[in-house]
Amino acid sequence: MTNTAGPGRPRDAEVDRKALRAAIELYAELGWAKFTLDAVARRAGIGKAAIYRRWPTRERLVAAALEQALVLPVIAVDTGTLREDLRGLAHAMMAYYLGPHGLAGLRLHVEARAYPELFAELAAGIRSMRVLEARAIIRRAIDRGELGRNASPTLIVDTLVGGLLNHVLATPEELRPEMAAQSEQYVEDVTAFVLTAAIAIYPPA
Amino acid sequence: MTNTAGPGRPRDAEVDRKALRAAIELYAELGWAKFTLDAVARRAGIGKAAIYRRWPTRERLVAAALEQALVLPVIAVDTGTLREDLRGLAHAMMAYYLGPHGLAGLRLHVEARAYPELFAELAAGIRSMRVLEARAIIRRAIDRGELGRNASPTLIVDTLVGGLLNHVLATPEELRPEMAAQSEQYVEDVTAFVLTAAIAIYPPA
Repeated sequence: MTNTAGPGRPRDAEVDRKALRAAIELYAELGWAKFTLDAVARRAGIGKAAIYRRWPTRERLVAAALEQALVLPVIAVDTGTLREDLRGLAHAMMAYYLGPHGLAGLRLHVEARAYPELFAELAAGIRSMRVLEARAIIRRAIDRGELGRNASPTLIVDTLVGGLLNHVLATPEELRPEMAAQSEQYVEDVTAFVLTAAIAIYPPA
Repeated sequence: MTNTAGPGRPRDAEVDRKALRAAIELYAELGWAKFTLDAVARRAGIGKAAIYRRWPTRERLVAAALEQALVLPVIAVDTGTLREDLRGLAHAMMAYYLGPHGLAGLRLHVEARAYPELFAELAAGIRSMRVLEARAIIRRAIDRGELGRNASPTLIVDTLVGGLLNHVLATPEELRPEMAAQSEQYVEDVTAFVLTAAIAIYPPA
């Protein structure tokens, strides 16, 4: 390890950051079949030795990159109202789908089936965190008396988050910049749409 | 071509069917990087020569398989009411997401970015057909006076179709059989949820 790095040499944290970023990008773009430590080193603009020293195998590197990008940043929204919690969740998910990690997340879902030994656990980790977070939002709304006891977290969160995902997936490549520019408004519209249905279908007692 | 095939030899249509089915399965599971004509021949249980004679390159075979599985079967729902149109669309999309082609469709979206020269046009074709179909459903509902003139096809269809997609993606692998068994009920619930919001937010004049 090079904790004694001088000014002409990037420090460890910087090397880590560049390598993990390049790894998530390459995984998203090319998938596991074409993922190599050499390609990551080239993309990151750092030496192969620095990569191999930290992550001796491509399995370890891709797991580290996915964990840091997708598993660790849990979206924890707790604002005190259902509307603001749903807005916060929707904004965070839209930023994720539009950002560099959205494609990696979709790729991970696809590849968890092809390479379960490598990706199934990571995909499951992301799923269960998202489900717990969504349930917590609806549970708190029920406890505050904003929704009836029978409110379905699944239905409310699937339509909110899935609505955003479908919007991004259904947009033609050439309209992506326009869609991204209007995404804040779309997040507001989807939140209002889902909230209206939730309150109408699950009114508080 | 072997149109004179005798009883001991599968006829052309049968060979086509087996090859295209094996191709879509292998593409979904392994992706483009590992897709080979040899693997398709093995999976289909037919001779390599039969594959090569029909599709001389893997590019041609994957395009034919994706087109047949994803582009050709347009979902055209026109029942006369918004509720039944949305139900029909939702049932068709759920069957697609749960069936063998759902994974291929997600893979195609992911790989359209990595290999645009191969997959971008196919992905765009699917997108535009789905968008046109969705718009037609909402347009007819407006014309029948079921929704106001300002009704947004995007918002209604994104939450409906995206809700189903998110439901399938968010379900842990071990709960998939249970989710599939309850999918008809979930389709009904999502349809009712989205319809409630649509009518509340875009009431007819």
